[in-house]
Amino acid sequence: MAVFLPSPLEILERKKMPTTISDVPTPSFLVDYDKVKKNAQKMIDTCERLGVQLRPHMKTHKTVELGTLMTNGTNRTIEVSTLEEAEFYAKNGFDDILYAHPLIAARIERCKKLAYRLKAFHVMIENFHGLIALLSSPLENGKKWSVYLEIDDGCGRSGVPWDSGDVIKLAKEASESPYIDLQGLYLYNGKTYEATDSKGIENTNKEGTDLLQTLHKRFTDNNIECRTLAIGNTPSCSRPHEGMNVLTEFHPGNYIFYDMQQVTIGSCDIDDIACRLTTRIIGHKPSHNIFLIDCGFLALSYDGMYEYPNEFSTFVDNADLKVIGFSQEIGKVTTKSGDKLNYDKYPIGSQLFIIPWHSCATACQHTVFYVHSGNKITDMWKPAKGW
Amino acid sequence: MAVFLPSPLEILERKKMPTTISDVPTPSFLVDYDKVKKNAQKMIDTCERLGVQLRPHMKTHKTVELGTLMTNGTNRTIEVSTLEEAEFYAKNGFDDILYAHPLIAARIERCKKLAYRLKAFHVMIENFHGLIALLSSPLENGKKWSVYLEIDDGCGRSGVPWDSGDVIKLAKEASESPYIDLQGLYLYNGKTYEATDSKGIENTNKEGTDLLQTLHKRFTDNNIECRTLAIGNTPSCSRPHEGMNVLTEFHPGNYIFYDMQQVTIGSCDIDDIACRLTTRIIGHKPSHNIFLIDCGFLALSYDGMYEYPNEFSTFVDNADLKVIGFSQEIGKVTTKSGDKLNYDKYPIGSQLFIIPWHSCATACQHTVFYVHSGNKITDMWKPAKGW
Repeated sequence: MAVFLPSPLEILERKKMPTTISDVPTPSFLVDYDKVKKNAQKMIDTCERLGVQLRPHMKTHKTVELGTLMTNGTNRTIEVSTLEEAEFYAKNGFDDILYAHPLIAARIERCKKLAYRLKAFHVMIENFHGLIALLSSPLENGKKWSVYLEIDDGCGRSGVPWDSGDVIKLAKEASESPYIDLQGLYLYNGKTYEATDSKGIENTNKEGTDLLQTLHKRFTDNNIECRTLAIGNTPSCSRPHEGMNVLTEFHPGNYIFYDMQQVTIGSCDIDDIACRLTTRIIGHKPSHNIFLIDCGFLALSYDGMYEYPNEFSTFVDNADLKVIGFSQEIGKVTTKSGDKLNYDKYPIGSQLFIIPWHSCATACQHTVFYVHSGNKITDMWKPAKGW
Repeated sequence: MAVFLPSPLEILERKKMPTTISDVPTPSFLVDYDKVKKNAQKMIDTCERLGVQLRPHMKTHKTVELGTLMTNGTNRTIEVSTLEEAEFYAKNGFDDILYAHPLIAARIERCKKLAYRLKAFHVMIENFHGLIALLSSPLENGKKWSVYLEIDDGCGRSGVPWDSGDVIKLAKEASESPYIDLQGLYLYNGKTYEATDSKGIENTNKEGTDLLQTLHKRFTDNNIECRTLAIGNTPSCSRPHEGMNVLTEFHPGNYIFYDMQQVTIGSCDIDDIACRLTTRIIGHKPSHNIFLIDCGFLALSYDGMYEYPNEFSTFVDNADLKVIGFSQEIGKVTTKSGDKLNYDKYPIGSQLFIIPWHSCATACQHTVFYVHSGNKITDMWKPAKGW
């Protein structure tokens, strides 16, 4: 791995690194190093066992350090959600990057630079606009655009509907173009998010695998070559069934941290969750049966708050607490049970820890992650930002 | 104003500045320079007319450039919501900064540095924990902690309840301490957010002004000296009544951009809104009557989405569109009316502009603001981030 020396400012900042998790400024995003290491290794082992290439998604954390951990130190074969991330990882020595977002013509120039810079850079298309954009801007010097075709299994997320005529038309045109290398098919397999246990995930995985195989056969029947059958998302890859060994690539991302949503789905246990938000109590409001914390919508994000008001914010060691409202920098906390708060138990200034509903949403609100092993802060990581 | 030269990297980035708003990458946050200038000037004029000191809040944008515009070029007398902002503005030559967040002991050391560095640095307290923290850490060299006491008018937001005995106790102890200069009282005046027109705001302003005057009289009766009576928030200061000239300071922030929430309250017209989010269409889903845009929850934020589903996302020149769902980097758009989308009118790749429900929430999701005059991009501004 290429080493990028920290700037003088960064060295100064690292000097100020807190000693323990009690010393971090609040609100802050905490990453449990031992748990992320375990989560990363487990997914590597799963993929090795099934003989499937792991292409971990970086969007959850956007850091160099976790990219290295998730790729088992190779810094190869990753997936990103924005061009900013693609450029960030390319700059930091990563290669074989899939830019997994429906391609539009307005992004071709930035993609071209990445295609020339990296040994392997892949784009994703889901419609003819994307295909025409590629055909109108062929790469030079013998390079071809490497393309994943995204499939929609009916969820209405991005992807070409799997049972529409457009799948074959798009794939046929792409595979017959001298400017394009049709790398493969990618299915997000979004129905796993409707599961409530690991059995439910496994069933959906079977459906997704069958769908990709059906499509692959249809491709073969139409003389369309395509090497990769990729399936995505964290529940799918956390609870795979053995029949998924017919697939080529796994694209999970959230598993590095996990969160309460993943627990609810059944893709992990609460002890697997490797991140927390730390906050402090800043005020008491007995007349409203609330206390105030220094965690507003900017620090935790609204993700899950309205759909899952009781699960959205899980306070570690304080099971009866929940966030019921936000301003930019302040949260209001009351009890789930409706019981009166015991303010003696929650003095102003005391530190609390929240497990987020959706760790991707919470992590992305932070410019630095405080990494710890046990209670000791061991590092500070800076994620990529923007688009 | 002290000038801070851009780094070589920033110079390079400015070279890449887009020419027009059609050239900006999407999603991006756009700032209309002519409108922010007008909004800033109008608030300056209002405060001059009423003889009230303007202390604009920086939390909405967190940029040096708008801080300068909002302070009429003085770079003095501002308000911030986080210590990170306070340090950012101090570093960039701003002075007389109020850190408007309930103070806790864990933040005393960073506050001390700011108190020594600046000619005027003020903290805000709302409880005895904050007061004790200050009394336990007196400043040296003849400096005193300058303190605003935050008042809660009953909304249950931060602030000591205005009608509780704690107000007098806190103020008395603060004013009698040799280590503290009790600067004044601050009322957020949150009830204005329940207004639906400018008349409603004016009525609430009258209540807020009366409340501050009642408290001030109570202070005088108790021999508590306090110079400043400050009232906050954008609706209050955008639609003041003339009787507010008895107050000392105005603390609005959102008025620099305004947004759909402010239109709904009655504090501005839609033409006053000085910011937009630009996005591009990246996919069509006729089977679900939606199209996809490259604006997910990371770019727009969820703020307002659940409480005001029809007002939350206002598409400029496309009144019947609304965002109905998000993933991290993708939004789903359909019609408010339930009519079928005319996909010919919305080709993939086309650029759309969204007026946010809450501009503070949307602006804070961005690491750069694209500034324009008419269609021409004139600058790129970088806001402070973190806590």
